[in-house]
Order: sequence, then C-alpha cells, then structure tokens
Amino acid sequence: MAFIKNAWYVASWTHDLKDEPLPQTILNEKIVLWRGEDGVVRAAEDVCPHRFLPLSKGRIAGNDIQCGYHGLIFNGNGECVRAPTQLIRPDCRIREYPVFETMGMVWIWMGDTAIADISEIYDLPQYHQTEWGVAFGDALDVEANYLLLCDNLCDPTHVNYVHPSTLGNPEGINAPVTHESTSWGVVTERLTVDSAPTGFVAAFGGHNGRVDMWQRYLMYLPSVSIIDFGATAAGTGNWQEGGDARIQVYSCHFMTPVTETRTIDRWLHVRNFEPDDQAVGENISEQFRIAFAEDKEILEAVQKEETVHEGRLKIGLDLDASAGLFRLKINRLLKGETPNQSAK
Amino acid sequence: MAFIKNAWYVASWTHDLKDEPLPQTILNEKIVLWRGEDGVVRAAEDVCPHRFLPLSKGRIAGNDIQCGYHGLIFNGNGECVRAPTQLIRPDCRIREYPVFETMGMVWIWMGDTAIADISEIYDLPQYHQTEWGVAFGDALDVEANYLLLCDNLCDPTHVNYVHPSTLGNPEGINAPVTHESTSWGVVTERLTVDSAPTGFVAAFGGHNGRVDMWQRYLMYLPSVSIIDFGATAAGTGNWQEGGDARIQVYSCHFMTPVTETRTIDRWLHVRNFEPDDQAVGENISEQFRIAFAEDKEILEAVQKEETVHEGRLKIGLDLDASAGLFRLKINRLLKGETPNQSAK
Amino acid sequence: MAFIKNAWYVASWTHDLKDEPLPQTILNEKIVLWRGEDGVVRAAEDVCPHRFLPLSKGRIAGNDIQCGYHGLIFNGNGECVRAPTQLIRPDCRIREYPVFETMGMVWIWMGDTAIADISEIYDLPQYHQTEWGVAFGDALDVEANYLLLCDNLCDPTHVNYVHPSTLGNPEGINAPVTHESTSWGVVTERLTVDSAPTGFVAAFGGHNGRVDMWQRYLMYLPSVSIIDFGATAAGTGNWQEGGDARIQVYSCHFMTPVTETRTIDRWLHVRNFEPDDQAVGENISEQFRIAFAEDKEILEAVQKEETVHEGRLKIGLDLDASAGLFRLKINRLLKGETPNQSAK
Ligand code: FES
Ligand code: FES
Ligand code: FES
Repeated sequence: MAFIKNAWYVASWTHDLKDEPLPQTILNEKIVLWRGEDGVVRAAEDVCPHRFLPLSKGRIAGNDIQCGYHGLIFNGNGECVRAPTQLIRPDCRIREYPVFETMGMVWIWMGDTAIADISEIYDLPQYHQTEWGVAFGDALDVEANYLLLCDNLCDPTHVNYVHPSTLGNPEGINAPVTHESTSWGVVTERLTVDSAPTGFVAAFGGHNGRVDMWQRYLMYLPSVSIIDFGATAAGTGNWQEGGDARIQVYSCHFMTPVTETRTIDRWLHVRNFEPDDQAVGENISEQFRIAFAEDKEILEAVQKEETVHEGRLKIGLDLDASAGLFRLKINRLLKGETPNQSAK
Repeated sequence: MAFIKNAWYVASWTHDLKDEPLPQTILNEKIVLWRGEDGVVRAAEDVCPHRFLPLSKGRIAGNDIQCGYHGLIFNGNGECVRAPTQLIRPDCRIREYPVFETMGMVWIWMGDTAIADISEIYDLPQYHQTEWGVAFGDALDVEANYLLLCDNLCDPTHVNYVHPSTLGNPEGINAPVTHESTSWGVVTERLTVDSAPTGFVAAFGGHNGRVDMWQRYLMYLPSVSIIDFGATAAGTGNWQEGGDARIQVYSCHFMTPVTETRTIDRWLHVRNFEPDDQAVGENISEQFRIAFAEDKEILEAVQKEETVHEGRLKIGLDLDASAGLFRLKINRLLKGETPNQSAK
Repeated sequence: MAFIKNAWYVASWTHDLKDEPLPQTILNEKIVLWRGEDGVVRAAEDVCPHRFLPLSKGRIAGNDIQCGYHGLIFNGNGECVRAPTQLIRPDCRIREYPVFETMGMVWIWMGDTAIADISEIYDLPQYHQTEWGVAFGDALDVEANYLLLCDNLCDPTHVNYVHPSTLGNPEGINAPVTHESTSWGVVTERLTVDSAPTGFVAAFGGHNGRVDMWQRYLMYLPSVSIIDFGATAAGTGNWQEGGDARIQVYSCHFMTPVTETRTIDRWLHVRNFEPDDQAVGENISEQFRIAFAEDKEILEAVQKEETVHEGRLKIGLDLDASAGLFRLKINRLLKGETPNQSAK
C-alpha cells in the first residue's frame, strides 16, 4: 500500500527534541530529527552513507549531526561537511526533509521538497486563543494502518459499543448520522437533541437537565482528525450559535503512518471552559486516555484479522458511507501522485 | 498437513465458560464459544463479517453474541439477528459449530455439521461412577504437532528416560512391550511382573513388597489417550482381574490441535482409591504435572528439530511400531475425508 | 554467505564444560560438546538420528552421550553404541567434530576432518609465560556478522568516536594509520608519538608525562584478533624495543560465527605488569567490558541497516583500506574451499 507523500505529517512533539538526535520512522522511512544549537529543528535520512550506522546513534555537533562510528559530520541539507583523516567526498550526502514547528509539534514534509509549503500545515485557530485551554495528550502507538484509524474517526456509531462507559450515550444510539464532502476531506455529524447528558457533558459542563449535543468529526486529508463536540441546555442553541452553559471541545488527532500496520496518533484537546486550569485539561485527557485505549484494542484486533482474512469480502453497512468517501479521496490523491499508474 | 475434520475435539473445560465469550483456535480455525443465559454453550466462527473484529472481543447478549465495534448481533446458528441503524442483510452470517458438554468438557465437531453425532463422543464409564475419584488437571499448551504427542502416548519406552525420577522404573527397562490394533485405535501394553514398585505405586498404593504392574496405553482416533495403569501385590491378579491392594488409574489426555505445531492437552485422571479425597487427587495431579512438563520439553524440542532437519531420514527403532500403526490409521482417515486426493 | 570451514574456531571456554552437555551453534551448525569422565572433550552433531531430539537435552554417560528421549547412546566418534530393547543399527550415527583444548578454550575444527591439524590453532606465547598476567573476559554475544567485528578490529579510527570516554585519545585523532599484509592476515598500526597519555595508560602505567603509544591490530584469518597496545615514556623506546615504564597489553578476541548475523566474541587479555594481581586483571577487563558494549551497540545497529539498505552502495573512506584487505583474503580462502564456484 502506498502513502501520500506530498503532505505534512507530525514527526514529534516540540518537547521531545532537546539535546539528543531523535529517530522516527515515518511512511516506512527512517528519519533523524535534531535541534541545532541555534534552536532550529532539522531532519535527514537516518543513515550514515559510509557504513550505514543510523545517524541517530551519533551526536549533535553545533547545528550539524556527527556519526557515532567514524565521525562524519552532516548539516541540515544532508551534506557531509567533515570527514576524519581525509578530504570530503562530494558524493557523500543524504536526503534532507523540510520541517516546521507549530502547535507544539514538529511537522515534516515527506514528498517533493520543491513544493513544500508551510501554509498548508493544518492549523486550529482556537489553539492560539487565550479563551481556549490547551492540553497535550500522548503519542499513542497503534499497531494498525492509519486508514483504520481514519475509519474510526469518521464513524460516531462505534462510540456506544466501544466506549459504553465513557463517551457512549445509550439515548443517542438511533440519532441520525449525516456526512458531507468538503474540499479538505469529510465531515460526519451526529446531533442528539433533547437528551440526557453523557457522563462527560454532566461532569465537565455541569449539566443535570436535558441537553442538545453535537459530535462533528472533521477528517482532514491525509490524516488529521478534529472532533468538535459539545452541548448546550436543550433548546437554547446549537453548535453554530451560542446556547446556555455551552461547552465545546476540539479533540485533535494527528496521525503519522509509521508502517503499513503501525500509526502514531499524537492527540491533544482544546476546550472553551476553564482555559487556565491545567487540572481540568489533565482530567479530560485522562478520560480520553481510557477511551483511546479502547479504540486501540479494537483497531489492532481488526488489523490482525485483515491479514488473516485477506481476500475475504466484507459485509458493508450504511454506517460505512463516510469512511468510504474519505478512502475514495485518499485513493484519488494517491493516483495524482503516481501519474503513470493512474494512466493504466 | 491436514487435520481430521469429522471428529469431536475438546474445545474447553466446562468451567472456563462463564459470562464472557471465549476465543479458541482449533485445527487452525478461530472459534468463539459462549454460554447463553439459558446455560447452553454455542460456538461460531470468531469474526464479525462487517470489519472482521473477532466476536470474542464483544459481549454475550442473552443467548446471542454482540460485536464490540458496531454492535451487530449473531445467534448460535451464525445468523445476524440485529444490525445498528439499519435492516439486517440476509448475507450477513458466519459459520456455526455443533458443541456438546460432557465429562466436564465442551466438545466441538469440526467437520460436516450434517453428520455430527454426539453418541460418537469419547466416554470413560468410570468417570461417572461413585467408586472412582475424578481430578481435573490443566490445559497443557505444547508447541508441537498433536501427532508427536500421540507418538509419545503410544510409547512406554520413553518413560525411563524422560521421567527417571517420577514415573520411571529401572527394573522395567527390558519388560516387553506389545501392541494391538483395535477398531478405534491402538493399544500398547507393558506388563512388569514381580518388580519393586515404582515411586508412584509405593506412595499411593502403599506397596512395599514386590508387585505386578501394568501400563496400557489406549490411543483413540484422532486424539484421545487413556493410560490405564496400576499394580497389585505380586502374583495375586492382573489388570483384568482383581488382585491384592489393587490400585488403578486412568490418566486421560484430550488433545486439541491448535495449529500444525501447537496442541492443547487437557488432562484429568480417574482413580479407584480414596475417591472422595480431593487432596489425594490433587497430589497425583501434581506428580503428573511434573512428568508432563518433562514431556513438553522433549516434544517441543523435537518439533523444532523437525523443521531444522526437514527432509532428513529418521532412523527407525522397534519401539516405533505402535505409534507407526496409529499414524497409519490417521492417514487412512484423512484419505477418507479427501476422496479426490486419495483417488490420485 | 559462506563461512570458512577448514579452520579452528573457539567452541567454548574450558570452564564451561563440566558435567552437562553443552549445545553451541557454530557456522550455522548445531553442535553438542561434552567432557567424558576421562576428562576429554568431545563434540558431535547435536541431534539424535531417531526422532531428532537434540542430544544436548540428554546426559553424559561415561565418555559417551545418551539421548534424553529413548536412551540411544553415542560415542565421541558419532557412533551409536547402545540402543534400548534392540540391537544397534549400523547406520545409526552422527557427525563428529575434532576438538582440542588450549589457552583456556575448547577449539573445534569445522571442515574436513582428514586435514584437521592442531598445530594450526592460534597461540599467543605470552599467555604461557609467568611474567605475563592473564585475565579472562566474557563471551560477548553480538547480533552481527563476524566480518563486521573484523572490520572494527582493523580500524583504530573508530576508537575516538565510539569510545571517547574510555579508550579514545583526542590528541591521536590525526595520528597516521598504516597497514600491512602478512601470510596470516593483516596488521594495522597507529603510533602516537609524544602525546598526553590516554586514561588507560595513565591509570595502569602510572604515566603522568608525555608518552609514545602504539596500537597494533593483528587480525588473523579467519577470526582471531590480537590488539597489541602499550606505552613508554616519550622518546625512550617503542613497541619493538624497551622503553621506560613500558606497559603492554594483548587484548585478544576469539570470534566464533554463530549465524550470518550473530557472533560470539570470547575475549581475554594478557599484560606485562602485575601479572599475579587478579584485581588488576579484573579492573582492566571492566574497562574493556564498557568499551566492548559500545562496539556491540554500533555493530548491531550496522548489521540491522545492512539488511534495510541491501544493495545500496556504501561511500568508501581511506580508513577502510585495512579491513578491505582482510575481507579480500577471506574471499580468497572461501574460493579455495569451493573450487567449482571459483572456476566459473
Ligand atoms: S559509519 Fe558513519 S562515519 Fe563510518
Ligand atoms: S466490525 Fe462488527 S459490527 Fe462492525
Ligand atoms: S529421539 Fe533419541 S532415542 Fe529416540
């Protein structure tokens, strides 16, 4: 299976890059990231072209990186700038990768460097606004293809079965799900009107009476998911307007394919209440942590069975429509990246 | 290597099936077992046909089983009886397996359901008689093909080399071994006349003087082994008659092939002395536990070497005759199940 | 990749062979070693030809070895000398291997037994002399091909990058390296004249002033490495002569290929100072232990990448010359052992 190359992926948290080189596998490529003494992050192929020791086994030398075996030094453009006991060979170089830091993360461009454009990096405006509180979660390591995670993040139906005790809402089981194609991906929506509050909404919104709740799954190509959910007192407004005692959370997933069967899901959330109380943020993260572990278990099991039942036809259900549309868009992008193959 | 399909195998202990679905791999097939709220055990293919999540990751719903991802419900006939947010698709079904409980175990029929006949399940009459005591052992997980276990259970010779300190009898090393073909398998016998008692016979039979001892290995097709062994005071009777201070034990192995190189051996024993004293039963089981762990080590080592030395000719010994006959019968059964191949 | 067969390799430490059979994999061959009750070490193929149980799972019987499954007994020539309950089959035999003990190690000949000659076993004269002290190190298990270890042991350049805090000498970074072809392999030399002492030389030689230091890497075909290193007060002599406060160490590596990607490196050292003080020996070994663990990490990383980057061209550096020559000699020996292939 191919990956979309001409895209920005999250390579690490900003706080993971200190004074040691950091190895990461992204789209099956082994990459070393390091922060120079000037504070700027750089990325290159994680291999010394001499004897193939990963450069991440070496050390940062100023703004450059030095191999830990015989001391070759490479700069952020992948050029060898020093060789021990001899002159530099001009063919001694490795692949570099454009990187950029924003939203507490290091983003990497995996495709053609000539068209890397940092304005295309996903941005959530609320992340930067002081009325909103940010809480960083974990880098969840899931042994499953990233599209299985995307399926899950296009599908509100699973919530009641996978997360019955945390995010589920028995009253909402039959609430209608709709979806819509956008220029950047797919939005899937479930509005639950005049319902008892879920545990989450009761705990963090202080709602005891009936509420209107929304879940909007914004799935951005190729692998950023923003789940916009919240509640207001029943009949006082909806997700677009105001509403009494309105609480709103953006639960954000930045998924980085490692291999065909492994994905790192770095997640954080942004909320419209008690923005400065870190304990509230951590409390919400703890709820998410439990729920995402439930997803992980399901997704890893499904991944394993995909191999076992290779070639077996799946039974399709109505609830697959949104995820199916997202996969269609992924395939179109893939074809665009491999013109020869699409011409066949 | 093929397995015999038209046969009953043990799928689990009765006491393993409570209020959670139980996944088991049998003859390379992944199966889910569950006990409905009516107390009846059911079995089906362990896969949801929607996205292939194993149904064993879901939950029991009444007498049915519900998928843990999007909530599809299947009954014991493998039919989908409820789908969330839509009508049931008639093609949404999975394979069912006939099951039956007896002798504290759940038995499963792996072949053509049309010819499943519970009267063919192996039964040991003494298991049900009050003068005999029953003790359940373990589900021993052995990384070896089930036929390597069967070889071992047709062969009294190994006892002195593999179990020198537990079941072995140095005086019996040259006692003659005979075997006999039966309609249901093979019996291998070793009678040791007028010998010092083995440690087991001394400990549990109270024998200090000379004894006559018998070991009868009853190997039933395809994979049930009953070892009938015991002792009487020398010259007072044999295994068929009475004899002074006669002790007799049926050591029973119910072997379930998991894969070509893995077998679960569920074992128990039935004895003719102190039938109601559980401590005696557990004491004997503890002896067996040590001995079977010795077998496991040998069999797993042999299994590994079979792969290493694939194609290398083995040296045959006289002691292989009984196991060889059993394997011949297995091969005949296999040919009977695959008529096209046997016609070649 | 082929191995050189007609050569002596170290199979174990002398002190590892007591009253249990010892399994070892050497050049991909599974071998059992045992010491008979006469004190003589024997070696044979580690497999019983009956059902393929490794003989190392059995026991020593006098000077012979007995299978742990059905009791076949084999002597040191690989002949079956006893079979239970029957006569011996003349075709029941296994491969034997010539072995010899010297320098605290058991050596094994892996090739044509007809030409095994113990006078070809590597010997270090100083090992046997009382003015020199011997200290045994460990059997270092490295997940890398033995030639990657040989590369490392032909290359003084890596010391400053891999062992900066133990064996490295920043002043010596630009000291010239020379190498020379010999009848038995390759010698690589680095002389560092009039330098500050390394940590090692200061600690064990008591040198505070300027020193002349030498490192001579003697790499013997196919896999013995002797690193002769030492120091004298600057200008008073060199490695061939005397010199004030001269200290000299032979750091010896006996490398046994296990598989294409695994090597056991048994190491010891011989020193010209405080020969009878075991604490000094162990103190030096402890320094080596730290350094060799650093090598192991690098070599295992390089081995992994060799697979990842299979077929990718390496950038050559001047420092590769000596290791390259050694590999050339290995290839010539390999061709000599496979005449048909070299004729192509
Ligand atoms: S492997 Fe990097 S410098 Fe040699
Ligand atoms: S995977 Fe079972 S209902 Fe979807
Ligand atoms: S396997 Fe060695 S004697 Fe049977």
